[in-house]
Amino acid sequence: MDFSLPPDLDALRLRVRAFVRDHAIPLEADPANFDAHENIRLDRLETLRAHAKQAGVWAPQAPVAWGGMGLSIVGRAAFYEEANYGLFGPVAMNCAAPDDGNMSILARVGTEAQKQRWLKPIVDGEVRSSFAMTEPAPGGGSDPAMIQTRAERKAGGWSIHGRKWYITGAAEAKHFILIARTSDDARKGLTAFLFDRDQPGWRIVRRIPIMGPEEHGGHCEIAFDGLEVSDDNVLMQVGDGLKVTQIRLGPARLTHCMRWLGLAKRCMAIAADYAEHREGFGMRLIDRESIQLKLGETAHDIAIGRLLVMQAAWKLDQGDFARKEISMAKVHVADTLHKAADMAIQINGARGYSKDTILEWIYRYARQARLVDGATEVHRMVLANAYRKEGIDFWNWGSDA
Amino acid sequence: MDFSLPPDLDALRLRVRAFVRDHAIPLEADPANFDAHENIRLDRLETLRAHAKQAGVWAPQAPVAWGGMGLSIVGRAAFYEEANYGLFGPVAMNCAAPDDGNMSILARVGTEAQKQRWLKPIVDGEVRSSFAMTEPAPGGGSDPAMIQTRAERKAGGWSIHGRKWYITGAAEAKHFILIARTSDDARKGLTAFLFDRDQPGWRIVRRIPIMGPEEHGGHCEIAFDGLEVSDDNVLMQVGDGLKVTQIRLGPARLTHCMRWLGLAKRCMAIAADYAEHREGFGMRLIDRESIQLKLGETAHDIAIGRLLVMQAAWKLDQGDFARKEISMAKVHVADTLHKAADMAIQINGARGYSKDTILEWIYRYARQARLVDGATEVHRMVLANAYRKEGIDFWNWGSDA
Amino acid sequence: MDFSLPPDLDALRLRVRAFVRDHAIPLEADPANFDAHENIRLDRLETLRAHAKQAGVWAPQAPVAWGGMGLSIVGRAAFYEEANYGLFGPVAMNCAAPDDGNMSILARVGTEAQKQRWLKPIVDGEVRSSFAMTEPAPGGGSDPAMIQTRAERKAGGWSIHGRKWYITGAAEAKHFILIARTSDDARKGLTAFLFDRDQPGWRIVRRIPIMGPEEHGGHCEIAFDGLEVSDDNVLMQVGDGLKVTQIRLGPARLTHCMRWLGLAKRCMAIAADYAEHREGFGMRLIDRESIQLKLGETAHDIAIGRLLVMQAAWKLDQGDFARKEISMAKVHVADTLHKAADMAIQINGARGYSKDTILEWIYRYARQARLVDGATEVHRMVLANAYRKEGIDFWNWGSDA
Amino acid sequence: MDFSLPPDLDALRLRVRAFVRDHAIPLEADPANFDAHENIRLDRLETLRAHAKQAGVWAPQAPVAWGGMGLSIVGRAAFYEEANYGLFGPVAMNCAAPDDGNMSILARVGTEAQKQRWLKPIVDGEVRSSFAMTEPAPGGGSDPAMIQTRAERKAGGWSIHGRKWYITGAAEAKHFILIARTSDDARKGLTAFLFDRDQPGWRIVRRIPIMGPEEHGGHCEIAFDGLEVSDDNVLMQVGDGLKVTQIRLGPARLTHCMRWLGLAKRCMAIAADYAEHREGFGMRLIDRESIQLKLGETAHDIAIGRLLVMQAAWKLDQGDFARKEISMAKVHVADTLHKAADMAIQINGARGYSKDTILEWIYRYARQARLVDGATEVHRMVLANAYRKEGIDFWNWGSDA
Repeated sequence: MDFSLPPDLDALRLRVRAFVRDHAIPLEADPANFDAHENIRLDRLETLRAHAKQAGVWAPQAPVAWGGMGLSIVGRAAFYEEANYGLFGPVAMNCAAPDDGNMSILARVGTEAQKQRWLKPIVDGEVRSSFAMTEPAPGGGSDPAMIQTRAERKAGGWSIHGRKWYITGAAEAKHFILIARTSDDARKGLTAFLFDRDQPGWRIVRRIPIMGPEEHGGHCEIAFDGLEVSDDNVLMQVGDGLKVTQIRLGPARLTHCMRWLGLAKRCMAIAADYAEHREGFGMRLIDRESIQLKLGETAHDIAIGRLLVMQAAWKLDQGDFARKEISMAKVHVADTLHKAADMAIQINGARGYSKDTILEWIYRYARQARLVDGATEVHRMVLANAYRKEGIDFWNWGSDA
Repeated sequence: MDFSLPPDLDALRLRVRAFVRDHAIPLEADPANFDAHENIRLDRLETLRAHAKQAGVWAPQAPVAWGGMGLSIVGRAAFYEEANYGLFGPVAMNCAAPDDGNMSILARVGTEAQKQRWLKPIVDGEVRSSFAMTEPAPGGGSDPAMIQTRAERKAGGWSIHGRKWYITGAAEAKHFILIARTSDDARKGLTAFLFDRDQPGWRIVRRIPIMGPEEHGGHCEIAFDGLEVSDDNVLMQVGDGLKVTQIRLGPARLTHCMRWLGLAKRCMAIAADYAEHREGFGMRLIDRESIQLKLGETAHDIAIGRLLVMQAAWKLDQGDFARKEISMAKVHVADTLHKAADMAIQINGARGYSKDTILEWIYRYARQARLVDGATEVHRMVLANAYRKEGIDFWNWGSDA
Repeated sequence: MDFSLPPDLDALRLRVRAFVRDHAIPLEADPANFDAHENIRLDRLETLRAHAKQAGVWAPQAPVAWGGMGLSIVGRAAFYEEANYGLFGPVAMNCAAPDDGNMSILARVGTEAQKQRWLKPIVDGEVRSSFAMTEPAPGGGSDPAMIQTRAERKAGGWSIHGRKWYITGAAEAKHFILIARTSDDARKGLTAFLFDRDQPGWRIVRRIPIMGPEEHGGHCEIAFDGLEVSDDNVLMQVGDGLKVTQIRLGPARLTHCMRWLGLAKRCMAIAADYAEHREGFGMRLIDRESIQLKLGETAHDIAIGRLLVMQAAWKLDQGDFARKEISMAKVHVADTLHKAADMAIQINGARGYSKDTILEWIYRYARQARLVDGATEVHRMVLANAYRKEGIDFWNWGSDA
Repeated sequence: MDFSLPPDLDALRLRVRAFVRDHAIPLEADPANFDAHENIRLDRLETLRAHAKQAGVWAPQAPVAWGGMGLSIVGRAAFYEEANYGLFGPVAMNCAAPDDGNMSILARVGTEAQKQRWLKPIVDGEVRSSFAMTEPAPGGGSDPAMIQTRAERKAGGWSIHGRKWYITGAAEAKHFILIARTSDDARKGLTAFLFDRDQPGWRIVRRIPIMGPEEHGGHCEIAFDGLEVSDDNVLMQVGDGLKVTQIRLGPARLTHCMRWLGLAKRCMAIAADYAEHREGFGMRLIDRESIQLKLGETAHDIAIGRLLVMQAAWKLDQGDFARKEISMAKVHVADTLHKAADMAIQINGARGYSKDTILEWIYRYARQARLVDGATEVHRMVLANAYRKEGIDFWNWGSDA
């Protein structure tokens, strides 16, 4: 048993921290650096990414052979938390969603040819990517069994019709992974396809406006009206669509948690800094018990979140699917992020509600955390079922690989 | 003891409901009806206000003599809750903040001449108004003792210098009530002044961008650099500034709660409607225990909120300041509004996070509820102190008038 | 609309308060006044009841014609809250469970002869009574449809076999109301019977030991092995057993809430008193923000509880079943009682955990509040369903009589 | 980084589990095995301890040289959690409070002679021990600076006068560690003394009755009226009393958490078992979402608790004081134990509130968890202050040794 971070990862972590502090955070102060969707403007991003490459903090999750840093999941946990201490850290270092998860799945299950064609340009930062699964009612929302987008067999490939929505990054992406139905088999009915923005047969219906700041490319509703995909652009085998989804989903969920910890720490820092300096009714805020209790509770929540994330990361590194551990991290860290932003706004008062700090940006962003990747209620039931089958002992909870 | 609403108020309430349903809510569906600050466009508002006057649901709080409906506070509670079932209801019927509170204070403490000059045009809907008290650090935030904006005596009047911020409606208002320091006396150091947008000696420094949708005229930072106010535009007496603030604040706080209940009910309705129709994993959402528990809890919270608001309203109508009752209503209803919006978003999933419903509008708006008019923590301590002095018996809690 | 207590009830309330303060509370200080089951010793009770009769605070719920005070439900709410400010108040004034509910149902639906035979002695304080419904698995726990105790028809009466448990007061009661199955009809399958302790054909299997202090007579498991009941001891008609239960249940639930408010107030008083005097780390507890926040929150909860109870009481007085209102009061006040006791223990520290105060008595007693008369979860779903059918408007929520 | 338990500790853990299942838990079913204070009867304990020694699961914390198992803190965490899956596990295996902490401190700071005289008999199970620090107001409750029990210098030793209370185990203990004031120096004013029950000059004033089941020897109030202690029975140096307290306190707090996890797991098991079998309203409890959500949440809380405990244990093993980590574990696990017992009672309904299961025993016992060893609020402020000084990074939070 060992709760310490290996020295090389600790050193890397501090390099990431320095990069974020020196290059990413300063951009947040000027609204001119944000685009219309509240993410970093693309021209600023280009410069920032150049700095990141120079600093050797680029594509931490991608294999070294393909241009990345080849970090373990534990390594990513240390890296990503520091990265998202700034709003623009992850995208600057090419470890933002959804590219991050797409690179991981392509690296893990793609053929060499597929990696060359679809993975390499994402790692290099030449293109952005997207993963298209969720559908509007009555299609597949959180329940993949309801997916209705259909790929019909034709000579040498497939012809695809249907509709997807909340497809993150679709408006800027060039490379897409698409999950569609190829049969009505309950387990083997779905297949994963790769396609390029420039192919005909699909279109963006609309960019769905949301409460929070957007990833580049937004969250789009898209329609397929005869998109053609050749057989060599099937990812894994026909019928492996659900498997692709599941392999991608666990680690992708966990990387969200890693980044959210960084944002939660940022909220904490802004709150504590204000409390140290602001006075009212004859005393500094920081000297009030009510303020100390809030800060102490958030610090506690963040520390727990990190333990849960690290435990899940370590289990993934052991070859386990770590489903229970990821569920626990997801539920806790999503709550923690919301509570940290909420607490920081409360302490900052009207200033916290204004756009004079980034707290309101984080608060809005945080609201999706309890929705995406399985609602809190779903994960709680997952844990109840795990308990029923396996008992509560995490150290001998069997692998669910 | 009688918990029923008098029949005339119940009938009025249903008229308000019909107006909101028929005229105000339909406008919410089209983004073109919103201005850049997410409130109703002024041209649409003009039409809507004409309909409201025609329907006899206009200026409920203002005296009949000055063109309003002269409702009791209990009557307002019934009216406002229905009004804000739609986003644009209050402003359509001229009972939105801050005009609402400004009309109330002017009607209550203004001279006849002041009412003619400053109140009448607001009641008639010809002008909007603003109340300028809060200051940036190190001035008076939540602590009026720290107010630094200063009015210096000069022949026949006053010359004012200083800075205010988060002044709601300032960018559209024509009539202003301003709280400034006229001496260093702890109780009688502040004075309330009336001024018109067209007077020289002041300017809007900036419209502070905030997380949520804005009242018309936004929340502004403003600077005074020699604004001159004549003696007849002092509201009440010199030294009565704190008194003006206190008279205005209690009922103004409570009208927020009345409106918030309407918004909370709207969230509940959107959530329940979606749950009745959406299916997943083989059953309708509404048939899930976890969904029923959420809806039941919110219904409970709203029902409690209404009791608290009605109790405080009734006490105000008896001539009491109802400070404890308003504190209780404020804390509870602010939480209820947040929880209702949050619950509705969770049930709606990604749709709830998008701008396809008004839930995210309400969610962002709701965040300020726990900040404005005294943070939750402050009101809790008020209650603790009231308990120490008076005990827990609400029915013989003495008047604090 | 009127939130004030009528002057006569307010005066009565103060008489109850004085009685409890002068006669009931002093007994709590000496363990010798408690019996083995942590209730007042029967000899002390006898004296106390004599004082109560003398003071004119006796049997508030019973009809004047039968020797009670004939209070409205609103009147009872005022009376009971004061009564249970002391542990022994309700039993001293003959308004403790289960006698209280039994008197109410007998007065409401019994024949004159039944009232003379079964009600009068309870009102007079000559006998105690019990209501036998709940059964061990697989019988009827919270679901009356599962009741298995069966009454078989025989000449001029019924013969009863079966088993009940958690029958409050059974070990001391002389008069029993028993719910048994007389047919398999879903709505009309149950019937209510009256029997006397001295009849043969039944026995107490055991007095079930529980966490908390017991009502006199405890909570018993009892067996019926041929108890015979004549036709004139059927309460209401054959087949009306569910109806009897429902008529009794609503007001009985609410009287629990009335009493719990009194206990919650007592916790508050003990906590505040200690906080005023105890010092640590250089300041009095009461001067700490964390303590004030706790006290303020409990005061708030109690005040809400009283509003909910009064609203439901008033509705019952209007002839309504007030199901939703009682559900809301039940959920809230049960939580409030627990939180008040828990808070008071936390403030008192080790002293609060000891038997040096009555807090630990109340804390254990409070735990059943969230279990009896419908668990919190059940009432939440009741509210959700009420919302689906009727909407959220309490003032025009139709009668559910 | 490594989250796995070493195989030898895992094997030991399973041996402990088997012992508890086979020997300790069966005793819980018969009330005759409990003494008047709700702990195991001493004659049954003797047998049980003999079994434990035979099974090689005895005195896990004590040095091998003195007859114990010499486990690391991590090893104890694994051991104790299994031990307290049964109520009598810890005392059976000689790892219950307060002996446990007393053996640890004696082993760590005692001289060889002191170990022979005071430690050895405790390890062997020949005597029980007690640690006397807390005082009634106005003495030292949670604030050691207020300690008033005073040791006066006399030839070759000390004469002690004063009063202590809530001294766990005092009525059965033979060996005592006592903290008394030897000067008014703020840091060096306290000294630790060793004394034997049979010495004159002290007496037990009373055994303080408490809500929960008692450790053997209860919680006593004791008075010193000239107890004489010779110089060789000073533990560490004169003036080191606060140091002794602090060295003892951290690990002792953590061992509470280890045991509490075992009790929480037991609650979970009882709840889940009942839910699997009990039906109502047409379905098994376990098939209800509301039940699954409760179980899932408790499982989550327990898993977090174990991570926090293990992290703190590992840090202690590294030579760190682990103050923050112990504070986090304490706050979380104390809450978890209460919530687990409360949840299990709620699911079991009336049965859970009765003494037919051990849930009510655990529920009462659990209430002290949030009080002893620093209230939750105190630990939250400790965390806030740690954050202010060190930031949130647990992996490079410096040693506070």
